[in-house]
Amino acid sequence: MHSERPTLRAVAERSGVSMKTVSRVVNGERYVAADTAARVLSVAAELGFRPNTLAREFRAGGSSATVGLVTGDVANPFYARIARGAEHALRDPGLSLLSASNDEDAARERTLVAHLVERRVSGLLVVSADDDHTLLARERTLGTPVVFLDRAPADVAADSVVLDNAGGVRVAVEHLLERGHRRIGLIGDLSRLSTHRERVDAFGTAMRAAGIPDWERWVRSDSHDLDEASRAARDLVDGPDAPTAIVTTNNRITTGALRAFVDRPERPALVGFDDFDLADVLGVTVIAHDPDAMGSVGARELLARIAGDDGPPRHHVLPVRLVVRASSSTSR
Amino acid sequence: MHSERPTLRAVAERSGVSMKTVSRVVNGERYVAADTAARVLSVAAELGFRPNTLAREFRAGGSSATVGLVTGDVANPFYARIARGAEHALRDPGLSLLSASNDEDAARERTLVAHLVERRVSGLLVVSADDDHTLLARERTLGTPVVFLDRAPADVAADSVVLDNAGGVRVAVEHLLERGHRRIGLIGDLSRLSTHRERVDAFGTAMRAAGIPDWERWVRSDSHDLDEASRAARDLVDGPDAPTAIVTTNNRITTGALRAFVDRPERPALVGFDDFDLADVLGVTVIAHDPDAMGSVGARELLARIAGDDGPPRHHVLPVRLVVRASSSTSR
Repeated sequence: MHSERPTLRAVAERSGVSMKTVSRVVNGERYVAADTAARVLSVAAELGFRPNTLAREFRAGGSSATVGLVTGDVANPFYARIARGAEHALRDPGLSLLSASNDEDAARERTLVAHLVERRVSGLLVVSADDDHTLLARERTLGTPVVFLDRAPADVAADSVVLDNAGGVRVAVEHLLERGHRRIGLIGDLSRLSTHRERVDAFGTAMRAAGIPDWERWVRSDSHDLDEASRAARDLVDGPDAPTAIVTTNNRITTGALRAFVDRPERPALVGFDDFDLADVLGVTVIAHDPDAMGSVGARELLARIAGDDGPPRHHVLPVRLVVRASSSTSR
Repeated sequence: MHSERPTLRAVAERSGVSMKTVSRVVNGERYVAADTAARVLSVAAELGFRPNTLAREFRAGGSSATVGLVTGDVANPFYARIARGAEHALRDPGLSLLSASNDEDAARERTLVAHLVERRVSGLLVVSADDDHTLLARERTLGTPVVFLDRAPADVAADSVVLDNAGGVRVAVEHLLERGHRRIGLIGDLSRLSTHRERVDAFGTAMRAAGIPDWERWVRSDSHDLDEASRAARDLVDGPDAPTAIVTTNNRITTGALRAFVDRPERPALVGFDDFDLADVLGVTVIAHDPDAMGSVGARELLARIAGDDGPPRHHVLPVRLVVRASSSTSR
């Protein structure tokens, strides 16, 4: 089955000019008389001729200088910085980045991956909301390299760049234990996300190691937006046997918790996963890391694969570090 | 000139299966024996057959269900929220959004526009960093609708969605004048941006109306990142005849100014353009507006154009409002 797309030749014939002239007009080059250009554009519009048709006619391979990035919510600064890091790493070798959000929805992610592959991206960077990576694995087999960011897939062997989630939470809990806290809470993102599970597991391990077996009573999961995080924070602090300290597992949840406590003179100690722009101004202790590096390391890995590197999958774990500020200074 | 792309038929013949079976394998459908699927994928990879070839073969028109968005820095929450608003408005009619950053660079913007048009987007939303919109106007003539966001183009008549920049700055200055301030400073973004020029012009008009003719001495432009904004804020406050109040013209600059004053007991009153997540926690008075609405209004305008609406260009001006918090409470 073939679609009938108007050709460069058809535009040239109808306009009464050469194909070279049509090419010049459509590509916006100089040295074409204004009335000729107007006639060619008018004919091109009439026939429905699109420059991309031209681009395809004049391009040999069909491969493109673009990489696709699929993340969760585009309005989360963590993802925005991943995008920036990837963009900068791709710029020198001359590639552009096209980003799209899956909104933590597996079906949307598959649609976006299909859109990007159809648009001949050279490779894909994916913060996956999907548990099933059959589609991505197939695209990889068919020649589009894929690097997983933030969340390593459990079902396929693939390149990935993740944070030291367990190490970060362990350091946060140990820091609060050192300050004398024993009743420590945790507010986390969607339970189904692997990063969330890793962070809760590390929390449990650190609490049990400190001889606090009933830690699960202070865990609140599935806080995916600011309001949910605020509610969870108030719920924890207003409950019986309230925690004296809280670990928030990402920057959105930290912001929600800060909002929940803004009018309260008594606040629990707070350590948040992810640094953020105003954490220094607000004096919030954080588990800091470099989201730009997640984007750039992932992009460089992808470039190696695009260049033909077919070695076994590589797994990068980016370091995190505790940045102590005022929010964790209250001792018990 | 035609590139020789391997066809579905070639893969079917080489694999010894039907075209329907190849289609099933490549589309990840069920009911294909595992060894057959493996053979087909192996042949497809060997021949360099790509699913997008398939998609094109089975698609009639060639038009796509995707819209491109080009903004400045992807890591700026203002742009991230524009993207979110556009994404949500496009979702119901079944379109996806592909975003890219021009980093406020005209040449990058042209490259990105070319990439997106080549990838057959149905329309373009653009926060343009370019003064010359010949390329975009040509794409529009050739059938790709374009809606300008945040900055209306001066050189072409086109649909646009902008903020009430002048009204916002006027309200901010009048608010500070009411509190008794006369020496009011302004820290602004890149001078070449039309939004910046509009905001500075409105600032000058409001100051002159208040009988303060020497207002330009307190204007600092070209603060495009947090560090530049911090420096400008310190420079203003440490200078001779320092302003007692400052207007910052976007959320990044506000953040930079907050950082500059974090260790100082004496701070100038502050009003920032753009609300932001922690402005309530920090008590920052802002000129608030709805960046999601800029994205969604723009997307709906674009959808109308994609659907064939060829009426004259429309110009939307989104309202802004003053949200008074503690940072502007100091009177003089």
